[in-house]
Amino acid sequence: MTTVDFAAWSCPVPLRDTPAVVMGHGGGGAMSAELVEQLFLPAFGASPDDLGDSAVVTAGGARLAFSTDSYVVKPMFFPGGSIGDLAVNGTVNDLAMSGATPLYLSTAFILQEGTDLAVVGRIAQAMGLAAAAAGVRLVTGDTKVVDSASGDGVFVTTAGIGLVAPGVEIGPRRARPGDVVLVSGDIGVHGIAVMSCRDGLSFGTSVLSDTAPLAGLVAAMLGSGGDVRVLRDPTRGGVAASLNEIARASGVGVSLAERDLPVPAAVRDACSLLGLDPLQVANEGNLIAIVAPGAADEVLATMRAHPLGAGARVIGTCVADHPGMVVARTALGGTRVISLPIGEQLPRIC
Amino acid sequence: MTTVDFAAWSCPVPLRDTPAVVMGHGGGGAMSAELVEQLFLPAFGASPDDLGDSAVVTAGGARLAFSTDSYVVKPMFFPGGSIGDLAVNGTVNDLAMSGATPLYLSTAFILQEGTDLAVVGRIAQAMGLAAAAAGVRLVTGDTKVVDSASGDGVFVTTAGIGLVAPGVEIGPRRARPGDVVLVSGDIGVHGIAVMSCRDGLSFGTSVLSDTAPLAGLVAAMLGSGGDVRVLRDPTRGGVAASLNEIARASGVGVSLAERDLPVPAAVRDACSLLGLDPLQVANEGNLIAIVAPGAADEVLATMRAHPLGAGARVIGTCVADHPGMVVARTALGGTRVISLPIGEQLPRIC
Repeated sequence: MTTVDFAAWSCPVPLRDTPAVVMGHGGGGAMSAELVEQLFLPAFGASPDDLGDSAVVTAGGARLAFSTDSYVVKPMFFPGGSIGDLAVNGTVNDLAMSGATPLYLSTAFILQEGTDLAVVGRIAQAMGLAAAAAGVRLVTGDTKVVDSASGDGVFVTTAGIGLVAPGVEIGPRRARPGDVVLVSGDIGVHGIAVMSCRDGLSFGTSVLSDTAPLAGLVAAMLGSGGDVRVLRDPTRGGVAASLNEIARASGVGVSLAERDLPVPAAVRDACSLLGLDPLQVANEGNLIAIVAPGAADEVLATMRAHPLGAGARVIGTCVADHPGMVVARTALGGTRVISLPIGEQLPRIC
Repeated sequence: MTTVDFAAWSCPVPLRDTPAVVMGHGGGGAMSAELVEQLFLPAFGASPDDLGDSAVVTAGGARLAFSTDSYVVKPMFFPGGSIGDLAVNGTVNDLAMSGATPLYLSTAFILQEGTDLAVVGRIAQAMGLAAAAAGVRLVTGDTKVVDSASGDGVFVTTAGIGLVAPGVEIGPRRARPGDVVLVSGDIGVHGIAVMSCRDGLSFGTSVLSDTAPLAGLVAAMLGSGGDVRVLRDPTRGGVAASLNEIARASGVGVSLAERDLPVPAAVRDACSLLGLDPLQVANEGNLIAIVAPGAADEVLATMRAHPLGAGARVIGTCVADHPGMVVARTALGGTRVISLPIGEQLPRIC
């Protein structure tokens, strides 16, 4: 049984001395955060509140959520989905995590010369189906082509606009000690599905990506009337990255019960094989919700009544101790710090 | 002296039999249009009105312009600007061509592993300065990294939201016979500036890219009260592509006077050297306006009073003859058809 001296513990130093881009800068962990905080924000003259997964802005009196993501997942087709599904669902979900109703998407393709047009067609069809399922319209687009040495199949960048209803206030700074941490379903599924068919690494698994649009689930949760304070889809960097970001933004600690984490056996086995922590593996169809203590039962019941939240459960609480830090109580009664991943555990996972 | 039998003339057949992506699919000409019309639109279940350079949508009662572009220009720094300038100005301009006031941009980076972080920093700084100059805010973003064999330095995809004022109706279908065709300044400058420093092709020229944000010029033009019907920034495919698209969308012919085209001597010389038609060369800081006959004088005067429209002039008229076709009267009194470029004249020009 191990315990951690929280006062003496500090975040490991990211690999920030490199003069060049390394894969870790795209991993959604500490190195990505540094790139944003130390390079992009100063250059853009932007505030630390900007450049999050989704911004809430006003235009013509409307409150809009606005978000973008590039998708470079490899391979482009994987068990349970494709880059087309991710490109739609990922941006839909980023909007939903602001409490918005997603409405419109843009889509920009960077195609590698020589890519089979049938592949481009399959991806586009997946996007069309995903958009219809999510209730959003693809309204504007762009296509560029790069020579064969400068690309890799299809890269897709989507941006999205959603409408935020009056009174809805969801944000990573709103967590308070005592709040309850919920997850809508199984952890680590998408990352393992993609890894299972990656060149040079393929292994047998029945795991399918969980890619799905979460806006309907969020609408139901917000409609339940309970005080939902923070929503986050734990993609790159997994649940570990999302909870660390929330803990830091809100200045609370997060305490998880490891035995309550819904990690499917196949994911756990694959993680053991690959030396991965399921908490750091990407998800594309579940969400973390932090809700006021009195609202937890009602929100949880609402989630469980939705097809995409049937496996919802409480996984922890926000605490006043160890602010900015995520700690898990292990099955044996010890504790371990769940760090913000530094770099790239699973490159090109989305 | 040559004349064209318009009745017998038809558009050359694009290279549509290829089963794979070729550079021409990203050229902004006929092959790009085919890719959108035959592959993306059916897959997305979208209408032909969708997937233009910019969409006008409504959200929460506000009329919004929404646009996206990926930027893959090579080299990333060229005389007069960088990929960062293009990524901001290009999307700002797409919004402005809908008559919108640009407000917010998103930015998504796809970085090649090994790219010097100082290069990323220079690009980000160019974006910050360009955004400030254009009066827009960079509010949300994303960064992905791909391995060194799968990218090429920095690819940037921006999307933008603009506000369209009540009563503003700008669109490619609004041109009518008798309308006047204006251009705000010199033609072909950006493309020649980039080509002049391209690996394997460098040649001496004093030409600097014209990259600039055109929203202020557009606001002045719309404020003049004259009936501005169509606006277009002639980027990939140049003035030829933009006028062909307008002619087809509106079902009018366009008649140009070749001697009135503002082609700088250095651009003309470089085009002669490279075998290019200046009308097909990309621009990043000028616009084409099609205005009602009675409004031409007033709009032209307004443009000339603006720093980015000082070189504005009339270059042609819309006609009832040869609908869908652009024809230039040559200096010798003949005529030539200005075709929609088929594929890629200048790859990776933006």
